[in-house]
Amino acid sequence: MLEELKREVLAANLELYTRGLAIYTWGNASGIDRERGLVVIKPSGVPREELTAESLVVLDLEGRVIEGGLRPSTDTPTHLVLYRAFDGIGGIVHTHSPWATAWAQAGMDLPCLGTTHADHFYGDVPCTRPLTAEEIEGHYEENTGRVITERFGNLDPLAVPAVLVAQHGPFAWGRDPAEAVRNAAVLEETARMAFITRGLRPSVERIPQALLDKHFLRKHGSGAYYGQKTSK
Amino acid sequence: MLEELKREVLAANLELYTRGLAIYTWGNASGIDRERGLVVIKPSGVPREELTAESLVVLDLEGRVIEGGLRPSTDTPTHLVLYRAFDGIGGIVHTHSPWATAWAQAGMDLPCLGTTHADHFYGDVPCTRPLTAEEIEGHYEENTGRVITERFGNLDPLAVPAVLVAQHGPFAWGRDPAEAVRNAAVLEETARMAFITRGLRPSVERIPQALLDKHFLRKHGSGAYYGQKTSK
Amino acid sequence: MLEELKREVLAANLELYTRGLAIYTWGNASGIDRERGLVVIKPSGVPREELTAESLVVLDLEGRVIEGGLRPSTDTPTHLVLYRAFDGIGGIVHTHSPWATAWAQAGMDLPCLGTTHADHFYGDVPCTRPLTAEEIEGHYEENTGRVITERFGNLDPLAVPAVLVAQHGPFAWGRDPAEAVRNAAVLEETARMAFITRGLRPSVERIPQALLDKHFLRKHGSGAYYGQKTSK
Amino acid sequence: MLEELKREVLAANLELYTRGLAIYTWGNASGIDRERGLVVIKPSGVPREELTAESLVVLDLEGRVIEGGLRPSTDTPTHLVLYRAFDGIGGIVHTHSPWATAWAQAGMDLPCLGTTHADHFYGDVPCTRPLTAEEIEGHYEENTGRVITERFGNLDPLAVPAVLVAQHGPFAWGRDPAEAVRNAAVLEETARMAFITRGLRPSVERIPQALLDKHFLRKHGSGAYYGQKTSK
Repeated sequence: MLEELKREVLAANLELYTRGLAIYTWGNASGIDRERGLVVIKPSGVPREELTAESLVVLDLEGRVIEGGLRPSTDTPTHLVLYRAFDGIGGIVHTHSPWATAWAQAGMDLPCLGTTHADHFYGDVPCTRPLTAEEIEGHYEENTGRVITERFGNLDPLAVPAVLVAQHGPFAWGRDPAEAVRNAAVLEETARMAFITRGLRPSVERIPQALLDKHFLRKHGSGAYYGQKTSK
Repeated sequence: MLEELKREVLAANLELYTRGLAIYTWGNASGIDRERGLVVIKPSGVPREELTAESLVVLDLEGRVIEGGLRPSTDTPTHLVLYRAFDGIGGIVHTHSPWATAWAQAGMDLPCLGTTHADHFYGDVPCTRPLTAEEIEGHYEENTGRVITERFGNLDPLAVPAVLVAQHGPFAWGRDPAEAVRNAAVLEETARMAFITRGLRPSVERIPQALLDKHFLRKHGSGAYYGQKTSK
Repeated sequence: MLEELKREVLAANLELYTRGLAIYTWGNASGIDRERGLVVIKPSGVPREELTAESLVVLDLEGRVIEGGLRPSTDTPTHLVLYRAFDGIGGIVHTHSPWATAWAQAGMDLPCLGTTHADHFYGDVPCTRPLTAEEIEGHYEENTGRVITERFGNLDPLAVPAVLVAQHGPFAWGRDPAEAVRNAAVLEETARMAFITRGLRPSVERIPQALLDKHFLRKHGSGAYYGQKTSK
Repeated sequence: MLEELKREVLAANLELYTRGLAIYTWGNASGIDRERGLVVIKPSGVPREELTAESLVVLDLEGRVIEGGLRPSTDTPTHLVLYRAFDGIGGIVHTHSPWATAWAQAGMDLPCLGTTHADHFYGDVPCTRPLTAEEIEGHYEENTGRVITERFGNLDPLAVPAVLVAQHGPFAWGRDPAEAVRNAAVLEETARMAFITRGLRPSVERIPQALLDKHFLRKHGSGAYYGQKTSK
């Protein structure tokens, strides 16, 4: 079942390594079939060399395993919270990519300092609050999802398709698993650029709203004029 | 038509990736046939794997498409302003390479701190002013070209073959598309070196004029003695 | 003799290069057969291209060469002190990987600033005190081992499987040589992340104990629920 | 003539690229046959793809071309000054590797902050004074050599086999061209480590003399015990 989605999720998990976003077993990617309400996700702790489409785990949105002989990623409850809360998204990735993770460890929103950022994220990439001891000791992974959705509030998750979890690292998402990987890669690159920019000018300010609008909206939405008409 | 120029422009676009100056669809390169007044440029949003000489777009200097079934790069109006203003240049590239982009995001000229810089750029690489909201909301890409030419004033674009557009990123150029890529790569490397240098000594000063003259002029112009006589 | 262990030690020594943790002859890896009380270690100053299983040196825990025609690594006495003091460990590596070495050169413990660190090290990675002139001029390599064990005191070496030797660089270990390499690689990555994090927020604090417990203990010990049951 | 030396010089020039010490035509390597008093050096401005043993230029120590149809590297007079002044050296390389170049641009000696440095350089790697306008406008490349030898004074060039030329970049040398490349690569890595170390602790001090002695002398000189007896 879900052969095409499994193929996409496998490819996304492997791309985390080829793009330098993960080493060892640090990252995970998932995808969802919205019609069936089923999620395909990486098994926990399996190294990239052993990953196959068959090794992926299929769950429903309540976390019940539907198919697969391995335990799903420990971060599965976080993914499920996000799929339930953000109904426009089709894929999620979690990484410990170093520059984005450093911003998360610093507990800071990633400010929009240039058009590279604005082309992909419609404003700052938010950082969550730290989890409380109770949240950590309780359903930790599920609560990780909850601080993300709490932080987003009314923010459109497809306009800002990533988040920094304080003291932890980034999650990114998109309309499908491949787009989620791309957003994780762009987040890493913009996190690096923002660090360097602040090193040059600590008082640097965000770009003005007009420039943010211009760059984001020329690539996204009904007024977009970037790319070819047949591409999304 | 323009087969040789298309081949050069394709090679320049691909070299942006192999030199690590672009990921995804972030960069673009173009070239001009000055005799015919025709520009060849990357199509908008096409990933590197799909780029072919046939996919490139041919335009005249007013932006009318002469050949090609795809939309040209969204940055095309910027390229055209530069080709019209800087009549000695034969190729242009735009990248979001991280170190140069950080200087652009910081809104700072890249100072000439050493001979690596002086070998290629005859003085600081200037950073433009930010565009106004009116300029952004109007003909944005064309106005991007205009703030570049405004910033250059009487500066010789072949003596300083690159610019940082504030809040955005670098453009570089040269006598042909390959030289434009080289200048973009050198800009990135000198931007990195300058960041590290300032980290070591925040008060570092520009190199003296005599050293700038020596290095730039031993490689460029009638008194050059670097390289072989048959190379340019 | 010890063919399997030699194979593991050879692989660990080579992996130091493929993971970018060593250049030239800067690193070394060893492994121990606890039943026989024999250690297998890299020969001194042999470049990676010439390393073979046969070139490895076998010693007892007192440093007597049992097999091998080459001199063992100059750091052998350090390895032996650690094997004698930390009886749960089966492999050790020493590198000069740049980010971890910089923390060692700064003489600073690597603070636990996020879950990436907490997944692998149960708290700060300690930095030793500098050796005294007497310790340096005496049995230097053995004394290097002694300042490590002095610094560890009652700390569990398998809960914090790495150390920074002040003015020198990191040692890492694990239950076998491959795990020692992994811990050295993770140390390098967390050292990089911590540097960037402090650059963003110099006053950043360690993560709370609850989060450290959660991440370390979900991967290690009887309550672990990360990975598959068949994996360690 | 000098076939073996040409082979070594060609290999050294190519290794500058494979080790990431040079891009484009930024570096050069040479070697000397002390018996014949002849130097083999890279031709000026020739890209790596076109370098062959036959393309190398042979000169005497006064700079007269003995063999070769191409112009020698513009930095040739610097190499010749060093060969004349430092009679124990057999190979020289010049690079614009970014971390070492940044220290040179900052005009700062590279301090010995750890054993990685001490294993290869017996103390700080000195930075020259800037050249005066007269020195730049006169025999610039020869004067570059002269500020190096001035800075070295009585310092043993084989104990500290590298220098930073202020506002310019590093030169490194060794007993043969391969060792010169290795010293340039080690210089780059220690320059990077020292930058990071200072970022962590701006007040960091040099390692004590006892540790410098221990590490340098266990690898160099009559009391060395690192490596195998058959290696140098």
